[in-house]
Amino acid sequence: MTPTRAGPGANDLSPSSPGGGGLSAFFAELDPAIVAVDRVQAALHAFDATNEFHFPAAVVRPRNGDEIRMVVAAAAVHRVPLFPRGAGTGFSGGSVPSAGGVVLDLLALNRILDLDEQEMTVLVEPGVITGYLQQYVERRGLYYPPDPASLKTCTIGGNVAENAGGPHCLKYGVTRDYVLALSGFTGTGAPFTAGKGILKNRAGYDLRHLLIGSEGTLAVFSSILLRLIPKPETRILFAAFFNDLDAATEMVGTLLRRGLMPSSLEFMDDRTLAAVEQHARLGLPIDAQALLLIEVDGRADEMPRLRGLVEDCLVGVAREVRYATTAAAQDSLWEIRRRASPAMRAYGNRKANEDISVPRRHVPAVMRGLKAIAHKHALNIINFGHIGDGNIHVNIMFNGDDSKECARVKLAIVEVFALANRFGGAISGEHGIGLAKKPYLAGNLDPVSYELMRRIKRVFDPHGILNPGKMLIFPEDSPDTLSGGAKHPREGADA
Amino acid sequence: MTPTRAGPGANDLSPSSPGGGGLSAFFAELDPAIVAVDRVQAALHAFDATNEFHFPAAVVRPRNGDEIRMVVAAAAVHRVPLFPRGAGTGFSGGSVPSAGGVVLDLLALNRILDLDEQEMTVLVEPGVITGYLQQYVERRGLYYPPDPASLKTCTIGGNVAENAGGPHCLKYGVTRDYVLALSGFTGTGAPFTAGKGILKNRAGYDLRHLLIGSEGTLAVFSSILLRLIPKPETRILFAAFFNDLDAATEMVGTLLRRGLMPSSLEFMDDRTLAAVEQHARLGLPIDAQALLLIEVDGRADEMPRLRGLVEDCLVGVAREVRYATTAAAQDSLWEIRRRASPAMRAYGNRKANEDISVPRRHVPAVMRGLKAIAHKHALNIINFGHIGDGNIHVNIMFNGDDSKECARVKLAIVEVFALANRFGGAISGEHGIGLAKKPYLAGNLDPVSYELMRRIKRVFDPHGILNPGKMLIFPEDSPDTLSGGAKHPREGADA
Repeated sequence: MTPTRAGPGANDLSPSSPGGGGLSAFFAELDPAIVAVDRVQAALHAFDATNEFHFPAAVVRPRNGDEIRMVVAAAAVHRVPLFPRGAGTGFSGGSVPSAGGVVLDLLALNRILDLDEQEMTVLVEPGVITGYLQQYVERRGLYYPPDPASLKTCTIGGNVAENAGGPHCLKYGVTRDYVLALSGFTGTGAPFTAGKGILKNRAGYDLRHLLIGSEGTLAVFSSILLRLIPKPETRILFAAFFNDLDAATEMVGTLLRRGLMPSSLEFMDDRTLAAVEQHARLGLPIDAQALLLIEVDGRADEMPRLRGLVEDCLVGVAREVRYATTAAAQDSLWEIRRRASPAMRAYGNRKANEDISVPRRHVPAVMRGLKAIAHKHALNIINFGHIGDGNIHVNIMFNGDDSKECARVKLAIVEVFALANRFGGAISGEHGIGLAKKPYLAGNLDPVSYELMRRIKRVFDPHGILNPGKMLIFPEDSPDTLSGGAKHPREGADA
Repeated sequence: MTPTRAGPGANDLSPSSPGGGGLSAFFAELDPAIVAVDRVQAALHAFDATNEFHFPAAVVRPRNGDEIRMVVAAAAVHRVPLFPRGAGTGFSGGSVPSAGGVVLDLLALNRILDLDEQEMTVLVEPGVITGYLQQYVERRGLYYPPDPASLKTCTIGGNVAENAGGPHCLKYGVTRDYVLALSGFTGTGAPFTAGKGILKNRAGYDLRHLLIGSEGTLAVFSSILLRLIPKPETRILFAAFFNDLDAATEMVGTLLRRGLMPSSLEFMDDRTLAAVEQHARLGLPIDAQALLLIEVDGRADEMPRLRGLVEDCLVGVAREVRYATTAAAQDSLWEIRRRASPAMRAYGNRKANEDISVPRRHVPAVMRGLKAIAHKHALNIINFGHIGDGNIHVNIMFNGDDSKECARVKLAIVEVFALANRFGGAISGEHGIGLAKKPYLAGNLDPVSYELMRRIKRVFDPHGILNPGKMLIFPEDSPDTLSGGAKHPREGADA
């Protein structure tokens, strides 16, 4: 993509002097067709799945890479905060325009630019919907595995910015594992491409991995080259119920050691099972302590053998096993998992949605710790998640109109993060830091790593215009900014 | 690891004022037991597999993380260049003390600190020999897949610094894919840990991936937490000979689309085959244009089926297929590949050892381009490598005593890199940049990415004491430093 005009800061990473004039001077540099300043557009871009609202001054909608570059370069000169946004489905406030400024809406860049079936790569713009891309490549016998719960609405650009996961990550990895190259612009509008369309690349530092999961704070992407894999021919899904939490968590190692690598290994606790049964009457054994949804995929010819192996592992350990070989029957088993979020509404009208990640062997102890926190604060805490990865979605259901319960939720969240820290875990496995977990990030890292991150942010974005106030706290931040991300209970749809 | 004394720069990333006094003041801060200044030690640490020699002023051998920290912090104060070194087996001059200063020999940190069989992780010091670690974990039913050719002597620390690969990377990935966490020190001696013992981590920027492959220029590692996987039960090896190069390269896609993921997919060209047959008389069809060594692994119960599937793919395409199911028979087939490097000696007493990486579909065109370069410059260019990854080891064999031939080799190397560039490839897939490819890195990247890398280097190492003169060229570098890495034909053992 050749820049069509020499915008300010082109190719230059150095800080520029402020141009003055602020927003109006910024808008004057842009094609009016891509700028919306009305309150309706502002309201539509003021929130994400955290249900925190911050109204932007405007929404800017570039239609191609050149327009992104011009927007970023002009924002750098006029010191206008930019909040890159895909579908706004995030659970950490990553796309919320928390410091005023302008939403950089990337949904207009929604083209699949090039599918190379032989090389098994696809070049896309950031606004392509993840689920659409999956269907598009699957029709051609290819497969893009990362599958966050929001895949029907979320975008690839947002998935890369947040390094999205999903149920298929144990076998197939997260978004990071499928990004070959990222083209985009730094916080001065300087264009770069990190990575190439190759599987092995030792040419310099790996900027690509630094950018994946950087939450829109280092650069804005204009195109993304993804690796694909052949679509598995078929799959079998098992629903295994356990009387004992430890037996369920130990099953992960049992399956792996038997040479099996499940394509999904999803976990639901006793509270989740009870809620789903109450809500949907699926005939679940509500006195079970845990459910594992175990999916194995592969060639059709190996399925009978794989089924036998999984059953051998489960026999005598699970109290009940159901399985499904057809798509319809599998869909019906997955319904247990899909009902979890609506079912939880019985426990409260709001949800604090955390997703800690811990070493797999500590999952039972962490689950006991979560139960203790729930008991101590008299809260409904319902847990499910990707047990093969040690990634637990911790859902605190509460009454948002009850200020005392809200206060207890705040205390409980701090204890949930302390629990993750105590077992060597991370405060987020998928959702990211954004606004919601910003006050807790420093406590989850060593001080040198935290300071290195701040300095890296300044390298890519010397004026601090890219998604300011997210992820990191800077010494120069105003007290207002510091508390801008201070925890208050957040509500969301699903994990 | 708690620092035992408050060394200069502890926890501080900011540049310090120079302490003055240079080397003698630096040595005065260290335990004399870890400092060697004799010429024999200097000579033993003056080179790597590139056969470029640069004598260091001394060799410093820390025995634990605290001593590493003290060495780095003192070097930062006294502005002493440090050259971190494992076994010195690299092919890009990464560990060569090219700017004088001191070799930081990490071989004394060679302990396996903790193997967690349930979690399938192992915590090691950087000086642990890769092959030793592999045997150690395999005795316990676990597997560490990255297998560079030097695995019997190279170290995990060096593997992480260079992001080493090997024949098993198509299915299992490179070193990067097995590093969960890195503890170490920045160029001011500030301690950090990047990553945790978990599979999913969204807490901040991914410093871990930035450090992997950073060639000792950003930090020195004191311990490394690696992920392990269950050891595959068994494997089958096929040697398939082809009359046509394109048929061999297309076989990669054929196997993948059939739902097969070979654990190895190694390629040798006609020149390599002819050389091996002349050298070792293994009864190879020397008029074949290519050999693929195809290894599939997995559970014993699936092997008959896998063997049938591979044979189905090969029948009618390969002109001859040999296979081996026992370890002894497999060892004998791998001998074809192992003989490649000694056999090449017939073509010259020196070897320029490149390892370009290109999109898989361009391998045939790149192979034709390599033949054209060989013909144009009347050189013996012999190619083999990891075809599933598009990673071609380009070996130019020549007479090091023939100055005219040496000059032609220099020209040919420039053309090999231009060829990789033309097809969207990287100038290195495994070996790294170091000294050897430093003059060519900027041509393989866009200018903004290159400048971002320079700025990241300054964040981690503000005084430029960590492996100075490697990978990146800085505006302030003296002309001498710039040409320090200027290409001259390099010799090495094996790829």
